[in-house]
Amino acid sequence: MDKSAVLADWISPSNTPVTSTEQFAPSNIALCKYWGKRDKQLNLPMNASLSVSLGHLGTHTRLVPIDYPTDEIWLNSDRLLPSSPFCQRVSAFLDLFRQPGRCSFRVTTRNSIPTAAGLASSASGFAALAKAANESFALDLNTEQLSVLARLGSGSACRSVFKGFVEWQMGQRDDGLDSHGVQLPVTWPGLCVGLIKVDASEKSTDSRSGMQRTVDTAHLYQSWPVQAAHDLEKLKQALASKDFERLGQTAEHNALAMHATMIASWPPLVYWQPESLAMMQRIWKLRKEGLSCYFTMDAGPNLKLLFLQTELDALMRYFPEMEVIQPFGHG
Amino acid sequence: MDKSAVLADWISPSNTPVTSTEQFAPSNIALCKYWGKRDKQLNLPMNASLSVSLGHLGTHTRLVPIDYPTDEIWLNSDRLLPSSPFCQRVSAFLDLFRQPGRCSFRVTTRNSIPTAAGLASSASGFAALAKAANESFALDLNTEQLSVLARLGSGSACRSVFKGFVEWQMGQRDDGLDSHGVQLPVTWPGLCVGLIKVDASEKSTDSRSGMQRTVDTAHLYQSWPVQAAHDLEKLKQALASKDFERLGQTAEHNALAMHATMIASWPPLVYWQPESLAMMQRIWKLRKEGLSCYFTMDAGPNLKLLFLQTELDALMRYFPEMEVIQPFGHG
Repeated sequence: MDKSAVLADWISPSNTPVTSTEQFAPSNIALCKYWGKRDKQLNLPMNASLSVSLGHLGTHTRLVPIDYPTDEIWLNSDRLLPSSPFCQRVSAFLDLFRQPGRCSFRVTTRNSIPTAAGLASSASGFAALAKAANESFALDLNTEQLSVLARLGSGSACRSVFKGFVEWQMGQRDDGLDSHGVQLPVTWPGLCVGLIKVDASEKSTDSRSGMQRTVDTAHLYQSWPVQAAHDLEKLKQALASKDFERLGQTAEHNALAMHATMIASWPPLVYWQPESLAMMQRIWKLRKEGLSCYFTMDAGPNLKLLFLQTELDALMRYFPEMEVIQPFGHG
Repeated sequence: MDKSAVLADWISPSNTPVTSTEQFAPSNIALCKYWGKRDKQLNLPMNASLSVSLGHLGTHTRLVPIDYPTDEIWLNSDRLLPSSPFCQRVSAFLDLFRQPGRCSFRVTTRNSIPTAAGLASSASGFAALAKAANESFALDLNTEQLSVLARLGSGSACRSVFKGFVEWQMGQRDDGLDSHGVQLPVTWPGLCVGLIKVDASEKSTDSRSGMQRTVDTAHLYQSWPVQAAHDLEKLKQALASKDFERLGQTAEHNALAMHATMIASWPPLVYWQPESLAMMQRIWKLRKEGLSCYFTMDAGPNLKLLFLQTELDALMRYFPEMEVIQPFGHG
């Protein structure tokens, strides 16, 4: 199904943007991962997922209408070539809102994610872009609609439209209009996310083609959607009862199971570096010694630690380079 | 079901061993792994497996009847305490052949596996012990019966009763009498197995409890028996057509999928060390550069390389510590 067709009831492609705007969307870390698509065109997932948004870390996107036949796209103060993959994706996304060849923009994208954090920016980037397009074209879409829109840019972007804990409901419809994020009515002051960067010695497969390879070649992937559904329920229970051990265990188990499906792909898809494994071993050792901390990992070599504020000082001694975010403030 | 009951038609527990004997059985490396039991008591597997025996590397076991109430057990020139787990397992195995408290033995076990190789010895050990008991009690069992017996000592020992390529047919019966090794009518001169030892910084979970944890806690394990069945067929086709690429790819994919089921267990079961991962990356890099080599791994940090003799010199430059076995001699 075509993206524009899906959006026909919400958006009439316009000739003229109304206004300039700047919007922000946070990065998000999934505690139950999105891995595998049931529709590649519309980024519809094989499983529901759950994330926590990272407060002030994310993407600021400014849209300014310009009188020029093509978009002018800036990323962190660099002007990008229109032929670059990033520009192509951004312009294609804006095409959902405008008549072909009309309404060009200067798009200024600024990531407030520290480079040391090793976070992907496409989730916050497309969430911010969806919000900005909504403002610029005065569409007055609600957040669930914005979440659907963001998903069409990049799957996990649908979660970055919201703050706090977000469930991406997978939905059932072919057009995906019921596949979007929903903010969960939970806050958890004192919950910490620690970003640990591991240098990747070689460029890894991007997550889009990685998940496709997994779905296509890993027999073990067949059991993934069932595990993800179980993990999502456990996480929601852990959030409801503020049971940190259950939260951490479920998130770590879920991340390792996702990596297991990658490892079981062919050719093998191992995003871990030797140093990633050394970090995992350090975390398991600390846990044995009584420190309560768990990790999660996305399609890359970096680890994200989960812990409560009470363990912050102790953990900083073992991971001095760690960047710590408290999505709900101090406990 | 009880082990002795299963064997009732083959063995009448005896009062008197007939003779002293020394028997040898080779180590084996599985190309399609045994991982998970459908019967813990009888070591009946969830999936069929396929291995190659390692020629002269293995275990020599001597049985000498002694006039003493308990067994006297030696391992590589060390006398072991009767209370050690090794002695308990060996004596319990010999109990299948004798009346309680009668017929003690001096059991002398010598492994010809270089310590640098990092190979488990329970497979060759119980295969050699089964052969020796058969001789000592003059039971005149055939090799398939010996394979069933060896399996009762340690699952993968049923493959070490044979030379060359061996399929462990999983069988259907509750008593497991149809679950044993079968030698495949294939030889492959020039096929090489390279043993690469990685030092484990901490003692890992033994494979018996590791496979149990996987079966009990890894959702992804549900898809393992299906993959193993597919891989077994592919390997047999590769053997029939002497297609080394297909053999290597299937063996590596199978080993990684087995490790994936471990990684998806809880608590996580990661036998890899950072150095294991560095070795894998080196192998993938060499393969990209055109060297044809694949690896397999068991429940530990060590790698076993698979390659043809034509690549031997090139590979020795990258893995100078590697111990190389040619199970079928030169090509």
